[in-house]
Amino acid sequence: MKTIRAGLVGITGYAGMELARLLAGHPSIRLVMACSRAEAGKRLGEYYPFLENLPGADVVISVFAPEDVAKQCDLAFLAVPAGTAMDMTPPLLAAGVKVVDFSADFRLRKAETYENWYSHAHNAAEFLDEAAYGIPEIYAEKIARARLVANPGCYPTSAILGLYAALQNDLVVTDDIVIDAKSGVTGAGRKAVVPMLYCEVSDNFRAYGLPRHRHTPEIEQEISRIAGHDVRLSFNTHLVPMNRGILSTIYTKLKNPHTSLERVREIFCSTWKDHPWVRVLPSGVLPETRHVRGSMFCDMALVLDPRTDRLIILSVIDNLCRGAAGQALANANLMCGFALKTGLGMAPLA
Amino acid sequence: MKTIRAGLVGITGYAGMELARLLAGHPSIRLVMACSRAEAGKRLGEYYPFLENLPGADVVISVFAPEDVAKQCDLAFLAVPAGTAMDMTPPLLAAGVKVVDFSADFRLRKAETYENWYSHAHNAAEFLDEAAYGIPEIYAEKIARARLVANPGCYPTSAILGLYAALQNDLVVTDDIVIDAKSGVTGAGRKAVVPMLYCEVSDNFRAYGLPRHRHTPEIEQEISRIAGHDVRLSFNTHLVPMNRGILSTIYTKLKNPHTSLERVREIFCSTWKDHPWVRVLPSGVLPETRHVRGSMFCDMALVLDPRTDRLIILSVIDNLCRGAAGQALANANLMCGFALKTGLGMAPLA
Amino acid sequence: MKTIRAGLVGITGYAGMELARLLAGHPSIRLVMACSRAEAGKRLGEYYPFLENLPGADVVISVFAPEDVAKQCDLAFLAVPAGTAMDMTPPLLAAGVKVVDFSADFRLRKAETYENWYSHAHNAAEFLDEAAYGIPEIYAEKIARARLVANPGCYPTSAILGLYAALQNDLVVTDDIVIDAKSGVTGAGRKAVVPMLYCEVSDNFRAYGLPRHRHTPEIEQEISRIAGHDVRLSFNTHLVPMNRGILSTIYTKLKNPHTSLERVREIFCSTWKDHPWVRVLPSGVLPETRHVRGSMFCDMALVLDPRTDRLIILSVIDNLCRGAAGQALANANLMCGFALKTGLGMAPLA
Amino acid sequence: MKTIRAGLVGITGYAGMELARLLAGHPSIRLVMACSRAEAGKRLGEYYPFLENLPGADVVISVFAPEDVAKQCDLAFLAVPAGTAMDMTPPLLAAGVKVVDFSADFRLRKAETYENWYSHAHNAAEFLDEAAYGIPEIYAEKIARARLVANPGCYPTSAILGLYAALQNDLVVTDDIVIDAKSGVTGAGRKAVVPMLYCEVSDNFRAYGLPRHRHTPEIEQEISRIAGHDVRLSFNTHLVPMNRGILSTIYTKLKNPHTSLERVREIFCSTWKDHPWVRVLPSGVLPETRHVRGSMFCDMALVLDPRTDRLIILSVIDNLCRGAAGQALANANLMCGFALKTGLGMAPLA
Repeated sequence: MKTIRAGLVGITGYAGMELARLLAGHPSIRLVMACSRAEAGKRLGEYYPFLENLPGADVVISVFAPEDVAKQCDLAFLAVPAGTAMDMTPPLLAAGVKVVDFSADFRLRKAETYENWYSHAHNAAEFLDEAAYGIPEIYAEKIARARLVANPGCYPTSAILGLYAALQNDLVVTDDIVIDAKSGVTGAGRKAVVPMLYCEVSDNFRAYGLPRHRHTPEIEQEISRIAGHDVRLSFNTHLVPMNRGILSTIYTKLKNPHTSLERVREIFCSTWKDHPWVRVLPSGVLPETRHVRGSMFCDMALVLDPRTDRLIILSVIDNLCRGAAGQALANANLMCGFALKTGLGMAPLA
Repeated sequence: MKTIRAGLVGITGYAGMELARLLAGHPSIRLVMACSRAEAGKRLGEYYPFLENLPGADVVISVFAPEDVAKQCDLAFLAVPAGTAMDMTPPLLAAGVKVVDFSADFRLRKAETYENWYSHAHNAAEFLDEAAYGIPEIYAEKIARARLVANPGCYPTSAILGLYAALQNDLVVTDDIVIDAKSGVTGAGRKAVVPMLYCEVSDNFRAYGLPRHRHTPEIEQEISRIAGHDVRLSFNTHLVPMNRGILSTIYTKLKNPHTSLERVREIFCSTWKDHPWVRVLPSGVLPETRHVRGSMFCDMALVLDPRTDRLIILSVIDNLCRGAAGQALANANLMCGFALKTGLGMAPLA
Repeated sequence: MKTIRAGLVGITGYAGMELARLLAGHPSIRLVMACSRAEAGKRLGEYYPFLENLPGADVVISVFAPEDVAKQCDLAFLAVPAGTAMDMTPPLLAAGVKVVDFSADFRLRKAETYENWYSHAHNAAEFLDEAAYGIPEIYAEKIARARLVANPGCYPTSAILGLYAALQNDLVVTDDIVIDAKSGVTGAGRKAVVPMLYCEVSDNFRAYGLPRHRHTPEIEQEISRIAGHDVRLSFNTHLVPMNRGILSTIYTKLKNPHTSLERVREIFCSTWKDHPWVRVLPSGVLPETRHVRGSMFCDMALVLDPRTDRLIILSVIDNLCRGAAGQALANANLMCGFALKTGLGMAPLA
Repeated sequence: MKTIRAGLVGITGYAGMELARLLAGHPSIRLVMACSRAEAGKRLGEYYPFLENLPGADVVISVFAPEDVAKQCDLAFLAVPAGTAMDMTPPLLAAGVKVVDFSADFRLRKAETYENWYSHAHNAAEFLDEAAYGIPEIYAEKIARARLVANPGCYPTSAILGLYAALQNDLVVTDDIVIDAKSGVTGAGRKAVVPMLYCEVSDNFRAYGLPRHRHTPEIEQEISRIAGHDVRLSFNTHLVPMNRGILSTIYTKLKNPHTSLERVREIFCSTWKDHPWVRVLPSGVLPETRHVRGSMFCDMALVLDPRTDRLIILSVIDNLCRGAAGQALANANLMCGFALKTGLGMAPLA
């Protein structure tokens, strides 16, 4: 079996760290390059002590240069901030390197939307059409043909997977959707700031980013596409004192209030029956973030509230694995012609 | 100043423990009796090591007998399960002991509602009208005259305080309210069950009780009273890996979409201006459970989402203090003729 | 490659759960049976939601019967309490089933020692000599030939690995060793008891089991064997509010106070050079439990305190993986003729 | 009763925050000034949202100037880094302002020791003799007369209180003491650094600072004074994923191995009988950090290990209250002629 040489650009964040963990167990994609200005010169195993004595530990961290990546890598994972990836990507593509971008730079179809929500100009807008939005259950074919995959945000992954079957099957009203999302702290990144210190987060719960979290347009874009018309929804985020995991509580109203819970479950189960990473839980069981920890699973439950005719969808993922590095690796598998689950078969660490 | 002799019936739960903490610092209500079948015979300081060397530590735990309470106490706090308090209360009242009941037994006006949600008959329904619902900001006068106070549930306290100003001032539509509530783990009580073990809760997030949490009818009863008509709402609960605190994210729709955030804030601030335990946060600041830890404060923030015409109210309390023992003590203060804040002036332990 | 059929007896504890996780990723040992009286009749995936859609999920839980195990399994993992395994083991061995026992029943060479520390008689003492003590770095050959492996305790694994190089090379005095050990909460098991509830453990630190933790004789037995004479030491345990991990701080005194830290490191590194799961950290780096989470690694650091001539050894493992299920699986690999690391190559989930 | 006007210099750390909490409940010491260069101009209630609507919230943060402090304050609490307090203190004392210094600047009697461990020159060494070391149980008289109190470090408070009775009564050998200390994360301060982020600390345990923690000389100085001769000991620190609390496990060897545990307890109890903040736990009960949370208590347990003739002393405090702000306030009470416990009678928040 062929081996793909991969570069990881941006190692100081949690998504990069998670990718290094996953690549250490991948049989056919080998980490050969890791880039970081701040940590250049160190061995990767020195920077990530957990990786020592495992594949990838001996890679020496270097400063990003497109020509070096082009020389050494078939594929690059960009785990860099929004605004940076759009500069790095064009030269890599030009040199024939495939790119999986973790940032938001190529997720939104319209440059104006990006500029409106991210507050700076997009200078690689010509790639927006080409970029595949990397949810493999939905866009497998486009991803398999893509040079550039925009790896989805963690919240959008949970929200889109949660709503997909309901919208695809026209079960719910689209102008009254509220997503109340809760995330573990790795979602906030790894910058040294006081509000993310242990003592500020621990034994505490709070909302943040209201009412304009940047993942809103990404969710609306994909939901609109599935629904077949423009959807505007309310998306609100909270910080949970835990490391990993996202739970989205999605409030919808049934189009037909007489639809039974059983019928809704049948539709969900049949929608996802060929996608084993999506697990529709048995009636009465509610999902928990720990049951997907470190894995690609998206667990979801359906609750019908007959008192208010609401269908409540609970959707749970691991924000770092399914919501970032694992999904990136699944996309890379498709782009390289490997089986989707290669290197991603591990059980959750419950 | 007179001293009130108080009994605490039920000491093995977290609400009882919190009341013992608060009474240790109260200048005029003295804990003279503590009842528990399981722990009878021990000194209270032996059972609660934190209390040793403080007022109340030397009380010897006894088995509940109404005549003993009547002999020794002016006031009894019942921190016992729903269904038990309704048996204990009538003889105490008959003997002239005032009662603050932590359970749900006297919170609902209608016995049928109770029986519908708590699945057993109510055998002291004749006291339902008499019982004051113990939110001091709303029912101070009735509480001051009451022999029996139904201490509100933790979730209802947060939800009712959060919605009060909006409903009182007719700001929002009442048939489309969603309360997405998140609670710390003390809210689940102190029974030894596997799902509440440290390793099952820690680094985990989940919903529970959907779609029929027992606090729903209590919230709807009070919200309906404030609104002036029957309100049905969607109330959903989640478990946060932290000890204390509740945050309710309350989704409402403005009656008049042109109402500005500034105007809404003015209305909230003016509604609460004489109630310093309710703190309406400055625009742009969101509440955090740690800022009210161990205190009587209810912090709230207002968010307007112009994209969906929603007013989102965030309301935060400490579930054990404001949501149980502290509010009970505030009610006791009113019932005994003490100033509301007596013994409750402590700053949050942030 | 051959496939070994494995049974897991005892599924309700954390060690059994961890083994199910690991077996789901093992290429050659297949979980075909899972036993539990309390949960019999359920699918394993129903009891362990995290396992759904993975190998092993469809096994139906049954009640333990040696003849059923003998019929269906080549190997049995006993994740049952001390005192139970000694009854289950003889019939399994007699039927030709290999046994890896997680309990203490076959760890101690002398039945009196067992009876002294575990307070009940040993009724399978004839197997004590035969049982291999399952630390693969030390006893690989005996394990490979064994029908019965006594899987070591979590604390002993960390303490023995930590001290091994120092004692083997006669670096430290043996009558003045103090092991101050700290463990995550999974180490306390999964029984529903109040002191292990989330709210009792969270934001709290305490010692327990002093001064007679049951792992003491097991540590002393192995340390004595390495030292070549009887060693008595002080072993003390603490509970850390975290799920997984053990850190042992081991206080020793150098035999020769002039030995340099560099020399000590050389000796440790050379002792462990062929055992990549033991990682002796670079000078100045201290181990952290998260860096070994979910893996077989034992990270250790050496600190020399010239002010008191002490050599302090810090030794870290994951208590569930290296300290229980992972080590059991490594032992099973050796017993079945597989490479030691088969199915255990995963990177820590940092 | 007179009112003392107090200034708090340094508000951005956890000790300053804790002092603000405590002063809000003090009947006779009023916070009138709060200094911070970074936050100058804000109201204190804006910077500390938990303090809003409580005494002190309306103080406007200002930049430190000795003449302003002198004008407005009778007493200053310096919650500033080591090295800064030594510059601030002399002008305050000269202006007649009493000073309680939280830093290490005036804790060590000898300037050389300070310079050796803190790596910079001491430029106010003339005050070292005058400064009282602020453990009220030991130095009440000197503190009551002092203009300048050096508030002890958190670890030293726990270690010195733990060892005091044993050394005072000549129970243990002084050349073989090991202190294995574990602290909550507030002990690390509130600087924004990656290793103190929630995700780096949570579900993790590690040692740090070995083998030269800066609190070592402070502990040795006080222990030597109690013992009556120079003592050198091994002091080692660990970081616990919790907010507050220190537990020190102190390993000593009995001078007379025949001393019974009962006798040791008698000696400890009699030593502390007039000091209700020190609670010697009953035999068989071990201390927990949560039982002292937010309070002045020091809980201690005594364990005798007859197998190794060791007396193990477990000593627990809240690092922010007893180990910093609370002890500072107790010292201020003595300096101002108030009863020791004024404003410090609160029960632990268990």
